[in-house]
Amino acid sequence: MSKKVLFLLGPNLNMVGLREKNIYGSETAESIDSEVKQWAASLGMELESFQSNSEGELISKIHSTPGEKDAIILNAGAYTHYSYAIRDAIACVPSVPTIEVHMSNIHSREEFRKTSVIAPVCRGQISGFGKYSYKLALYAVKEIFDKEV
Amino acid sequence: MSKKVLFLLGPNLNMVGLREKNIYGSETAESIDSEVKQWAASLGMELESFQSNSEGELISKIHSTPGEKDAIILNAGAYTHYSYAIRDAIACVPSVPTIEVHMSNIHSREEFRKTSVIAPVCRGQISGFGKYSYKLALYAVKEIFDKEV
Amino acid sequence: MSKKVLFLLGPNLNMVGLREKNIYGSETAESIDSEVKQWAASLGMELESFQSNSEGELISKIHSTPGEKDAIILNAGAYTHYSYAIRDAIACVPSVPTIEVHMSNIHSREEFRKTSVIAPVCRGQISGFGKYSYKLALYAVKEIFDKEV
Amino acid sequence: MSKKVLFLLGPNLNMVGLREKNIYGSETAESIDSEVKQWAASLGMELESFQSNSEGELISKIHSTPGEKDAIILNAGAYTHYSYAIRDAIACVPSVPTIEVHMSNIHSREEFRKTSVIAPVCRGQISGFGKYSYKLALYAVKEIFDKEV
Amino acid sequence: MSKKVLFLLGPNLNMVGLREKNIYGSETAESIDSEVKQWAASLGMELESFQSNSEGELISKIHSTPGEKDAIILNAGAYTHYSYAIRDAIACVPSVPTIEVHMSNIHSREEFRKTSVIAPVCRGQISGFGKYSYKLALYAVKEIFDKEV
Amino acid sequence: MSKKVLFLLGPNLNMVGLREKNIYGSETAESIDSEVKQWAASLGMELESFQSNSEGELISKIHSTPGEKDAIILNAGAYTHYSYAIRDAIACVPSVPTIEVHMSNIHSREEFRKTSVIAPVCRGQISGFGKYSYKLALYAVKEIFDKEV
Amino acid sequence: MSKKVLFLLGPNLNMVGLREKNIYGSETAESIDSEVKQWAASLGMELESFQSNSEGELISKIHSTPGEKDAIILNAGAYTHYSYAIRDAIACVPSVPTIEVHMSNIHSREEFRKTSVIAPVCRGQISGFGKYSYKLALYAVKEIFDKEV
Amino acid sequence: MSKKVLFLLGPNLNMVGLREKNIYGSETAESIDSEVKQWAASLGMELESFQSNSEGELISKIHSTPGEKDAIILNAGAYTHYSYAIRDAIACVPSVPTIEVHMSNIHSREEFRKTSVIAPVCRGQISGFGKYSYKLALYAVKEIFDKEV
Amino acid sequence: MSKKVLFLLGPNLNMVGLREKNIYGSETAESIDSEVKQWAASLGMELESFQSNSEGELISKIHSTPGEKDAIILNAGAYTHYSYAIRDAIACVPSVPTIEVHMSNIHSREEFRKTSVIAPVCRGQISGFGKYSYKLALYAVKEIFDKEV
Amino acid sequence: MSKKVLFLLGPNLNMVGLREKNIYGSETAESIDSEVKQWAASLGMELESFQSNSEGELISKIHSTPGEKDAIILNAGAYTHYSYAIRDAIACVPSVPTIEVHMSNIHSREEFRKTSVIAPVCRGQISGFGKYSYKLALYAVKEIFDKEV
Amino acid sequence: MSKKVLFLLGPNLNMVGLREKNIYGSETAESIDSEVKQWAASLGMELESFQSNSEGELISKIHSTPGEKDAIILNAGAYTHYSYAIRDAIACVPSVPTIEVHMSNIHSREEFRKTSVIAPVCRGQISGFGKYSYKLALYAVKEIFDKEV
Amino acid sequence: MSKKVLFLLGPNLNMVGLREKNIYGSETAESIDSEVKQWAASLGMELESFQSNSEGELISKIHSTPGEKDAIILNAGAYTHYSYAIRDAIACVPSVPTIEVHMSNIHSREEFRKTSVIAPVCRGQISGFGKYSYKLALYAVKEIFDKEV
Repeated sequence: MSKKVLFLLGPNLNMVGLREKNIYGSETAESIDSEVKQWAASLGMELESFQSNSEGELISKIHSTPGEKDAIILNAGAYTHYSYAIRDAIACVPSVPTIEVHMSNIHSREEFRKTSVIAPVCRGQISGFGKYSYKLALYAVKEIFDKEV
Repeated sequence: MSKKVLFLLGPNLNMVGLREKNIYGSETAESIDSEVKQWAASLGMELESFQSNSEGELISKIHSTPGEKDAIILNAGAYTHYSYAIRDAIACVPSVPTIEVHMSNIHSREEFRKTSVIAPVCRGQISGFGKYSYKLALYAVKEIFDKEV
Repeated sequence: MSKKVLFLLGPNLNMVGLREKNIYGSETAESIDSEVKQWAASLGMELESFQSNSEGELISKIHSTPGEKDAIILNAGAYTHYSYAIRDAIACVPSVPTIEVHMSNIHSREEFRKTSVIAPVCRGQISGFGKYSYKLALYAVKEIFDKEV
Repeated sequence: MSKKVLFLLGPNLNMVGLREKNIYGSETAESIDSEVKQWAASLGMELESFQSNSEGELISKIHSTPGEKDAIILNAGAYTHYSYAIRDAIACVPSVPTIEVHMSNIHSREEFRKTSVIAPVCRGQISGFGKYSYKLALYAVKEIFDKEV
Repeated sequence: MSKKVLFLLGPNLNMVGLREKNIYGSETAESIDSEVKQWAASLGMELESFQSNSEGELISKIHSTPGEKDAIILNAGAYTHYSYAIRDAIACVPSVPTIEVHMSNIHSREEFRKTSVIAPVCRGQISGFGKYSYKLALYAVKEIFDKEV
Repeated sequence: MSKKVLFLLGPNLNMVGLREKNIYGSETAESIDSEVKQWAASLGMELESFQSNSEGELISKIHSTPGEKDAIILNAGAYTHYSYAIRDAIACVPSVPTIEVHMSNIHSREEFRKTSVIAPVCRGQISGFGKYSYKLALYAVKEIFDKEV
Repeated sequence: MSKKVLFLLGPNLNMVGLREKNIYGSETAESIDSEVKQWAASLGMELESFQSNSEGELISKIHSTPGEKDAIILNAGAYTHYSYAIRDAIACVPSVPTIEVHMSNIHSREEFRKTSVIAPVCRGQISGFGKYSYKLALYAVKEIFDKEV
Repeated sequence: MSKKVLFLLGPNLNMVGLREKNIYGSETAESIDSEVKQWAASLGMELESFQSNSEGELISKIHSTPGEKDAIILNAGAYTHYSYAIRDAIACVPSVPTIEVHMSNIHSREEFRKTSVIAPVCRGQISGFGKYSYKLALYAVKEIFDKEV
Repeated sequence: MSKKVLFLLGPNLNMVGLREKNIYGSETAESIDSEVKQWAASLGMELESFQSNSEGELISKIHSTPGEKDAIILNAGAYTHYSYAIRDAIACVPSVPTIEVHMSNIHSREEFRKTSVIAPVCRGQISGFGKYSYKLALYAVKEIFDKEV
Repeated sequence: MSKKVLFLLGPNLNMVGLREKNIYGSETAESIDSEVKQWAASLGMELESFQSNSEGELISKIHSTPGEKDAIILNAGAYTHYSYAIRDAIACVPSVPTIEVHMSNIHSREEFRKTSVIAPVCRGQISGFGKYSYKLALYAVKEIFDKEV
Repeated sequence: MSKKVLFLLGPNLNMVGLREKNIYGSETAESIDSEVKQWAASLGMELESFQSNSEGELISKIHSTPGEKDAIILNAGAYTHYSYAIRDAIACVPSVPTIEVHMSNIHSREEFRKTSVIAPVCRGQISGFGKYSYKLALYAVKEIFDKEV
Repeated sequence: MSKKVLFLLGPNLNMVGLREKNIYGSETAESIDSEVKQWAASLGMELESFQSNSEGELISKIHSTPGEKDAIILNAGAYTHYSYAIRDAIACVPSVPTIEVHMSNIHSREEFRKTSVIAPVCRGQISGFGKYSYKLALYAVKEIFDKEV
């Protein structure tokens, strides 16, 4: 039976392709989303994607995962840098491994982007590979599912 | 006529009993809520409880209290540590005394939990007594109502 | 054809006139809103006002502006000081100039209010003139529309 | 058999009622002490009060509690903010739960008062309710004695 | 009778138009000065402009305003960031409202430019609108003169 | 009737003349004490001197001054730099003006000596004139007694 | 023709399997190395592995890559946190993309491990997936080779 | 033969009596100056007073003292807090002892006023006694002249 | 003639064996004291031990050593981290070499324990060897007595 | 035709030879000035020297250089460490290369001297070679004139 | 059978006796080394000494100890203050206790020498006794071997 | 007899001409080296050049200079910013003056490059003149040899 993965996107990630193209590229959020779904399918996973600009909705979505999802791939956008509430939400669902993902290399941008307050409660972090960061996260999830990590 | 108290809970507090049990115990949010309601009743207070993961909803709820509630017992969860917006909301309703409450001892956990940005506009702070922190807050509210503080 | 301006107000600004009157004056949010609308009209602009306590709604509103609005006048309230997510939202819509506005002089209040995380992506900042800060922002927008800035 | 509680007061707390009345009220240390004793009695506790301006005497008093007292209610005054020696003293007697209490809201005063070096080794903290902070601490101790915390 | 405004410019502002044109534009200090004078006149104000690279002369000029000027529009240039002496000078003449102005958006440049040591004693701050920052300051002064701020 | 002054000396000041002579000179604590007494007498003041290495004793001594002394001349030694408890003690007796004195220039020694936590609650500070710092403090007290400050 | 990848390991990584097994697991450096080689081969890459405890040797190895290697997968061990010299070495070979990899989640360990001085000059960072971090890096390199990143 | 003292006043001190009267009192700079001159005369000193708002003029005046003056009484106003140039000027004339004076208690005002960059090169500091701070400085200078310090 | 050593112990060290046994072991303060005395005797030294929780008493004891003791072995407990007064006391008796000792490795515990304010005035520091830290200090003292250090 | 160089000296540099001789040597400012002029002449340059203690005059002098001078050799004295106004002045004349020079090694003196706020807008920095620092600067300027840098 | 100890010396320690003699004395590294060997022999230990200026070689040497050595006495020289790689190397060999040693008192020198990044993974630290620091470390090792620590 | 100079180059400086050409230019390390040798020869100096990426080798090379070289011209590359070990090596050979050199202006690049930990033990620093920085250093060395500095 296929594993279920939540592909959770935070604020402004609906604007990818429209916003700062030099950083995020010109592919739209929609086309990336469908590409990620295909990658997931090819790895035998069922992927639900959910984007919200609301910190509260992201938290509630994370709360809903136990028993429903096997892993979370999370790009929390700018909330990465200050949302201790999302951090606590992830800590609330320890049975669901969470992978922190960023399209850009957050370590080579503004100073404030170098701090991730959610990293300490995530399984790992992947940063800097554009849309392929999501693909790598899927591979990572697969390794976890294969009981290999 | 009985006094009206708003029991306001912030992000992730709906997950108590499910989340980090070593810190928050294994009683569920629901059972604690009903116990707090009973304690309030025994002190002659009418308690409305409201939980939200959304910073905006918490703010709006605080705005609604003047004329409707006589006090707020607030566990703002992780928003405690960075939500200057909730701080401002409390400052907007000076006629409604707000008691800051935490189940865990926030002063003995991670560094970031030691700072409360809402404390300067609250009447007082109670931290570290598990669900009994709420009970103590009710006692505190009672003293305020008795015009004794 | 008249220019369209979004008058965007963040958390607690619905409480102006009710909250800290020594800082914000005693005119209500409603009366100020209608006065700002009149000023806009007299400058030949069509002004839509939108207030929300929710960070996510403010972000989504900003996203909606390209093609719909010609400028944003933004008083982000306390989110000014920590919402990197709103900052990113503004950066997502570079074609819509955003003016940062504050009624009080944020530079002469608490330490935390001196830092604006959204300022680096705004066109300019106006602070300290009460409701007239909005009027000045309208003048600023007008200069931008007149292609003079 | 009634429980024994040490009511331990640090520097300058003998001056309450004489010192900064706007912060501490005008009731004298003596009248508060006798009121606290009555509250304790009504909760079935035997309360010994001890005040000292000397860091060393406070430490020695804490050392004396194992086998003699069942709990400590401690207002360490200004030592709260720098006495790592008192912190270590509390850590020396883990069998005796210690409740940190402050009459004023230490979180809304000078910057230096926001840091409590003893908090990490105390059971919990109550701050901001005037003399009622002590009453709440008694309730807290009672809950601990009732094996409920 | 027309109001008198001091248009006070600090170090290097005589070089506008010659210096960093990408930041300050290519209009010369002289042409801007005469445009500002026209704007003032059209608002019924009499504007005296004074530029100096000397901190001491700026201070003395500020001292001379009581009874002579009704307001100061001040672009203190780099002194903005460290001249506590100019700050004190402004504080010396509380009867003369001072508006802090910057042509560039000081909040989006080097780190050191984000701090204004004079802001806490000014009425308000306008930053980022090129020469129109001065025009906005004139509007602000007008509102103050109309007894509306 | 002569005014009464408490000459209060903190830790290690009994060792003056024996300790670091390059900083404190070679006159003994005793000889300085008797010289200070003579100066006081010549100014028509009655001076009681009290030295203690104990923070608690210094605090208690300060508490004893209301009604007994007209002023305190205080060299708190190293406690100057961290004793918030002594600071609070001084704040407890606002009717008794306290002059902070140092024999050495504390601003030109180790970094930690540059911070005085008691200064904000003292009337003024005199530092760097050896034993004559005490003489200057007596003159300062005299001016206060003459109702001239 | 197969792509050539340098698998570069810094100090103490020869001790994996022998050192802190709770963090790094019990597989030896050798067995991981041969597994990584297999993964590379299966992706059609030729992988040379090189481990050194010497900062200088790591730098020289990086210098040797232009024209010889198509990418570097680098786990710089503790040098990650302070070797600006390795950072400069990576910046010297911009034609060879470098992927920063860590087996443990460096963001959830000691404070000093949260800072990577080499991250700003790397293409991206993968952290926290044990030996699979290397596998993910291979996938990342493959995407780069496929001209897709 | 009488000793010659330079009474050197920095920026804004010409405004005493006109500026912040709650801090500096309502006596004018002129009346204080003539009172200080009288005090000096009564102590057998010849006092020249010099006030400037210009950092450069203050420096040059200090340079002129060797051979001309026997001591400097210096209230550097706000330059106290950042003028390393004045500090160097004082260090240039080691044969002329300099006394740092402040009318207000700089240690109990804004944070930035607590740092004196000139203190390390002055003989001593007197702060907080209003115009009597100058009188105390004259006494201090007298002790130095009497070869007693 | 045998050398005389003061074995000086600060706050909470009377509780060793009773307090945190995982850190300090389960031997009592008394048994360690008698073992240290035996070690001293076997090295031909006469050792007086003195423990106090009072900062003032420790200071006075240090003052008493010149002419009475040949060296001090000092474990200042938590005062190590903030007592500048004890630091000054040690500096007062430069003829008596002082060895700073800690049973636990203070460098591997809480952040605040990593700073010793007394270290700069001690001859050396020994930390982390349990009761044997004292034995090593005795050996160190012996080397000093043998004129070899 | 010979190149024209401005030799610009800041505060207190007129006192060289008179001030701290252990740092600056005992040759007077005049003799150094004439020696620098000779060196310049021997390199075929025409050197104008200008010293001022006034920040404003230094700024104005820098403004005067375009078209008049080919390079500036600048020892800004203590202004080096805080004068953002001089920094801006240098940035105003990008066509005139500016060499920052110090006689003493500013990196081995007080902490505050290690920061140069003007360095980022200068061509290079030479520090620590006494009067020969100026000679080296002349050589540097020569290389620039020879179009070799 | 005698115990084997590695006497490991870091950068510049080969220069002892040649370098800063006021700090390290004038005995050469060789003579100290042979004296340490004798002390070891007299305590029944076999001591191998190894000095390197190379961080990598020190790391590799530490790696070689398990099964070969029973303890390490380590003076890491300046690497003490920043080599997280050596720290990790020590953590790799937990079965071999490591004693951190310094000849000078690192706590009374430059600020940067007060931090030891290796201390948290060492058994204990001995600092300030010249060559006798090594002797004390041998005694410490002996106590460990005697199973007494 | 000609003076001997060690031209010592640290990490990545072998890559000049190949690395970041916008910063370091496109001349190769070899061509610069031979040009520097010619300059040295023309000044009558014998120059040995030595480049290493290894911190340890650089240290050992510095140790070898006493009696062999008369001066060191050192570009320590990135080690400049953190190698306290190289700093100590320079301090070990005080008889050999060391000139710190940088091709780029380290004060106008990344924040971390602004700190030189070796500067306090070098004779002087030259920064920002490309390969001519080395030429200037040779001139500086010549002045030192001429006994003129």
